[in-house]
Amino acid sequence: MRLVTFAEDGKEPRPGLQVEQGIVDLGAQGFKDAIAFMSAPHSVQTDLARSSATVALDTVRLLAPVPNPPRIFGIGVNYADHAIESGTKMRDVPTVFIVLSSAVVGPGADVVLPPNSSMVDYEAELAVVIGKAGHRITASKWEEHIFGYTMMNDVSARDVQRATTQWSLGKSFPTFAPMGPWVVSKDEIADPHRLGISMTIGGERLQDANTSQMMYKIPALIEYLSSIVPLQVGDVISTGTPAGVGMGRTPQRWLKAGDEMVVAIDGIGELRNRVVAE
Amino acid sequence: MRLVTFAEDGKEPRPGLQVEQGIVDLGAQGFKDAIAFMSAPHSVQTDLARSSATVALDTVRLLAPVPNPPRIFGIGVNYADHAIESGTKMRDVPTVFIVLSSAVVGPGADVVLPPNSSMVDYEAELAVVIGKAGHRITASKWEEHIFGYTMMNDVSARDVQRATTQWSLGKSFPTFAPMGPWVVSKDEIADPHRLGISMTIGGERLQDANTSQMMYKIPALIEYLSSIVPLQVGDVISTGTPAGVGMGRTPQRWLKAGDEMVVAIDGIGELRNRVVAE
Repeated sequence: MRLVTFAEDGKEPRPGLQVEQGIVDLGAQGFKDAIAFMSAPHSVQTDLARSSATVALDTVRLLAPVPNPPRIFGIGVNYADHAIESGTKMRDVPTVFIVLSSAVVGPGADVVLPPNSSMVDYEAELAVVIGKAGHRITASKWEEHIFGYTMMNDVSARDVQRATTQWSLGKSFPTFAPMGPWVVSKDEIADPHRLGISMTIGGERLQDANTSQMMYKIPALIEYLSSIVPLQVGDVISTGTPAGVGMGRTPQRWLKAGDEMVVAIDGIGELRNRVVAE
Repeated sequence: MRLVTFAEDGKEPRPGLQVEQGIVDLGAQGFKDAIAFMSAPHSVQTDLARSSATVALDTVRLLAPVPNPPRIFGIGVNYADHAIESGTKMRDVPTVFIVLSSAVVGPGADVVLPPNSSMVDYEAELAVVIGKAGHRITASKWEEHIFGYTMMNDVSARDVQRATTQWSLGKSFPTFAPMGPWVVSKDEIADPHRLGISMTIGGERLQDANTSQMMYKIPALIEYLSSIVPLQVGDVISTGTPAGVGMGRTPQRWLKAGDEMVVAIDGIGELRNRVVAE
């Protein structure tokens, strides 16, 4: 199933399931948001996924599927070739930073270049959405605790990110966390570690990799994170970006107004966001 | 005024104002939490501060005054002598990291040593609580945007914090962000940059400094942070710790079960938390 959050003109955003004929309105079924739906029993979820659509796709705008995740855990330098291009050492454990949820926007939303950065960069990432809370989850139980997969573009102001040792602020400007367009439930992705992942801007393929290249795989990420922080339903783990970011290119390539960024991941789809000047 | 959040046995936590005779129950006045009260007009706040107490102090337990801050911005190496002891360079802008709000506990709560760290440390800090939302706040308007001051003990698992470049996880174990006991409103602190600040454990004064030693003062912190992230009511900025942490001592001193940590700041009071084994 494809979990979305959608808005019709003049109405509050509601969760939904995107099916072939349109959207099953989960708001009308009493779910106040995507997190409430992910918290429901699996049988309730699958029954609803067989319902008929009640909302036409062309009357709505999709927001980020989980518009306000409790936390977004970003994973740094999780593809060896990106670690090399960014000059960052791999460590014995995953490098985890926080992206503020206030930066989240949905598919089709503008990414706004702030006046206080001149080095804004893209990062195509596979994002995992937690569906069942847990503390100290063992790696072997990882799949029980996830609802599914989406895409995140971990937009990063490199000058701000690298002005100090800590990366969160440079990745948390408003609009810097485009996410979506939906969360594909885990049953629809046979192997999340075998998906083509790419970033294309203006027809140019700038990142082109496979999730098989991730150093810390999803089970290890969930085990490590949850050994420290109890995970909550709706938490997002953005699993890191492969090589090809603007910072690592010669010459370096920074986002400019008019760029249309397209993240694509096999089995999930495309996440498109246009860059605009403020 | 002293804004608290309190719990009576078997009842939901409510916000309150601690006055000489007890607590003014703000829940009974329709405020669902401390953030709702801080968002109310100043005249409403001051009127309520003149009310009579309706709850006796000895029937309640104080929680963190803002139990679930939207964000906690930690400021790294903001006292020169702590920068030296921790071997961390000062930068041209404040070093900002995120502490997860899930780590917050109140005065008197236990701080639990996790099994996956053997280097847990204390950090006495002055914390600023945002009372008025704002984006791109100029330094001169800083005071308009704050509600007041509290204390935070930025408990840090140094081994986890330093296993990678990113500090958030090492500071976000459950119970690692004791805060309180109250937020003292800004009108009661003449100059937040002239307050004695200390950490005492078992009668030993381990940190003993003055907020005048902060490198980035509160106006600069608010201007910088809000130039990137729109600040929200209830956001906490923990302004950094002075020298004397366990990591910087010879020999190094790590927290152990039974330690009672006491943060004290002039004009605010004391924040006491006992360390326990899991």
